Amino acid sequence: MENYLRTLPLFTTLGETCAWIDIACGLKQRYKKFLICGLGGSILTTKALLDMTFSRDRGPMNCAILDSIDPFTLYRLQQQDLSDTGIVFISKSGTTSEILCQVQALQPKEATVITENKDSPLFTIAKKNGWTFIPHPHDIGGRFSAFTAVGCLPCALMDLNAQDFIAGAKMAIKDYDPSESEALFDAYRSGRTIHVLWGYSDYLDGLLAWCCQLIAESLGKKDANQQSFGFQPIVNRGTLDQHSQLQLYLDGPHKYIFTLLRVNCDTIPLSSRSNIVSDSSMALYQNHTSNDFLNAHFENTKLVLKEAGHHVREIVLPNLSENAFGFVMMRFILETLSLASLAKINPFDQPAVELSKRFMERFL
Amino acid sequence: MENYLRTLPLFTTLGETCAWIDIACGLKQRYKKFLICGLGGSILTTKALLDMTFSRDRGPMNCAILDSIDPFTLYRLQQQDLSDTGIVFISKSGTTSEILCQVQALQPKEATVITENKDSPLFTIAKKNGWTFIPHPHDIGGRFSAFTAVGCLPCALMDLNAQDFIAGAKMAIKDYDPSESEALFDAYRSGRTIHVLWGYSDYLDGLLAWCCQLIAESLGKKDANQQSFGFQPIVNRGTLDQHSQLQLYLDGPHKYIFTLLRVNCDTIPLSSRSNIVSDSSMALYQNHTSNDFLNAHFENTKLVLKEAGHHVREIVLPNLSENAFGFVMMRFILETLSLASLAKINPFDQPAVELSKRFMERFL
Repeated sequence: MENYLRTLPLFTTLGETCAWIDIACGLKQRYKKFLICGLGGSILTTKALLDMTFSRDRGPMNCAILDSIDPFTLYRLQQQDLSDTGIVFISKSGTTSEILCQVQALQPKEATVITENKDSPLFTIAKKNGWTFIPHPHDIGGRFSAFTAVGCLPCALMDLNAQDFIAGAKMAIKDYDPSESEALFDAYRSGRTIHVLWGYSDYLDGLLAWCCQLIAESLGKKDANQQSFGFQPIVNRGTLDQHSQLQLYLDGPHKYIFTLLRVNCDTIPLSSRSNIVSDSSMALYQNHTSNDFLNAHFENTKLVLKEAGHHVREIVLPNLSENAFGFVMMRFILETLSLASLAKINPFDQPAVELSKRFMERFL
Repeated sequence: MENYLRTLPLFTTLGETCAWIDIACGLKQRYKKFLICGLGGSILTTKALLDMTFSRDRGPMNCAILDSIDPFTLYRLQQQDLSDTGIVFISKSGTTSEILCQVQALQPKEATVITENKDSPLFTIAKKNGWTFIPHPHDIGGRFSAFTAVGCLPCALMDLNAQDFIAGAKMAIKDYDPSESEALFDAYRSGRTIHVLWGYSDYLDGLLAWCCQLIAESLGKKDANQQSFGFQPIVNRGTLDQHSQLQLYLDGPHKYIFTLLRVNCDTIPLSSRSNIVSDSSMALYQNHTSNDFLNAHFENTKLVLKEAGHHVREIVLPNLSENAFGFVMMRFILETLSLASLAKINPFDQPAVELSKRFMERFL
């Protein structure tokens, strides 16, 4: 890891603040279900982990996400009895307009709030109403907060292992190789300014949405000379998007970086049902598992994208686990910080968004 | 509508082939649940309509989608009792490798198949096993098949009104104004080659994924002089993506076209719960509905994107209905065909995908 990175609170406090452990235990005793409310970096770690849980035998956890102020969504929530649902509001600044809208719509008697320990509407409401309060670190921004209470409290509420999640992140720091970031920077300089994150799994959508936010908001910036930088990130799911986007990638006018991700599925027992459906054309399908086919599609896509002149790399997750997700997320954080350093931009601010937010109330 | 379009089967047969009506009735008497299996254009209309149904009081229909060969997904399906589930396989060619994988994994005793009336593995299997067969029109490709049995059978199985869906499409043909396509073509020529479809609603993801496929696969082409054309489509959801992508759009290096979509929510009863949560900072939220805020965000985003020099337009859906979805989908079809005509490319083929598919089996 580059030296200046070692001093960032994001790394120096990794796995140290654990106020969420006891609170998660208490909440799990009181509530059967949870509703986690947040926007952007405050909710995308939860979404990543929640999407992962859908792969498991026992199915998705009793945990839902509220990341919008859609009137239909809020209306339906208002019709529900939420007395056995633990509600968690997450907003670093405590001023996020959507979160305050959600508070107004849901009017919970009790709730848990993760926000900075400073005066703000959300902080004041939490204190006034005796809600549970967990401090959001001042010096770690929303999109870098995966391994603080912002990611770890929901992780624990979903019955996932937050320590494994953090351990994965620590492993990624040890393993980090900056040469890949340099290759991405070179690819950018040669005009490959669109970065497609293509997951060959049904359970990576949330993870890749998290990566998308990290890449877009950290790197979409002007440098000191007012030169614009930034990758346009895109999330794809394979093989589905072979039938949607591949034609454009092969014959269209853009130059791309592709990060193809797949999950090692060797541990999955691929039982074959008795062959009710028989036809000579099915021999190929009787002799191979769906995993064989998925991998063949993956390798074929990788090859044709390379042949089309794009910058292609792959990431293999050993499994769909907290540890593997923590590893990949920290890997993307390190890569993003390295790219910011190469491009001489500040990855930690979002000046254009802050500026545009201020004017929203004009339209009320 | 331009004259040559009037002769396309997509338009001349609109709403005429109705084999699916009686079959849908029969299936609904036999089964409680449905699993619709398809890839690309064969499944995205179903996904669009299914996502819409989540907005309704009675919640999502007993209808699920299988659009992958993920081993975890197939394994979990294999563990389930599917005897009360009507399975529908959709593949125009009848050779889609993923669909045959799914047939092999699920081994259903009965199923319904939508495929071309010609020799193919899926056609043969359907005939041999006495499955219900609905012919897929030869002369309407997958991504233009929304208003045939491909879209209308699942629509009817979800208890939605397929006639309203088709009526919306017919209205869009009457209303069609080619000047917008010309504006998009001019925007493309001035370097705006990324088209962001940004839905300010939780229920448009499927619709916009459908648009994405239509745009990418129809227009991502080389013309007769081997010049590449194509828009990179991207789906966003607001306000969530204000916290993820807006920084990049305002300070980054790319030039964009934005289509911002919103749904008129005036009919939604926005009940206010009693104000348990009170604080002076909440006055703004007590005096406005979530819809007021959503619209303020929408208008603000529209303004800041325009000020940043992007090409911005808006589409307002009168409601979340079959009719409104049919209208928007046909509007995008007409626009896509006009753009293909302006760029002198063939919107109906996908030569690069067809070529790349052939090599997949090398990797088995």
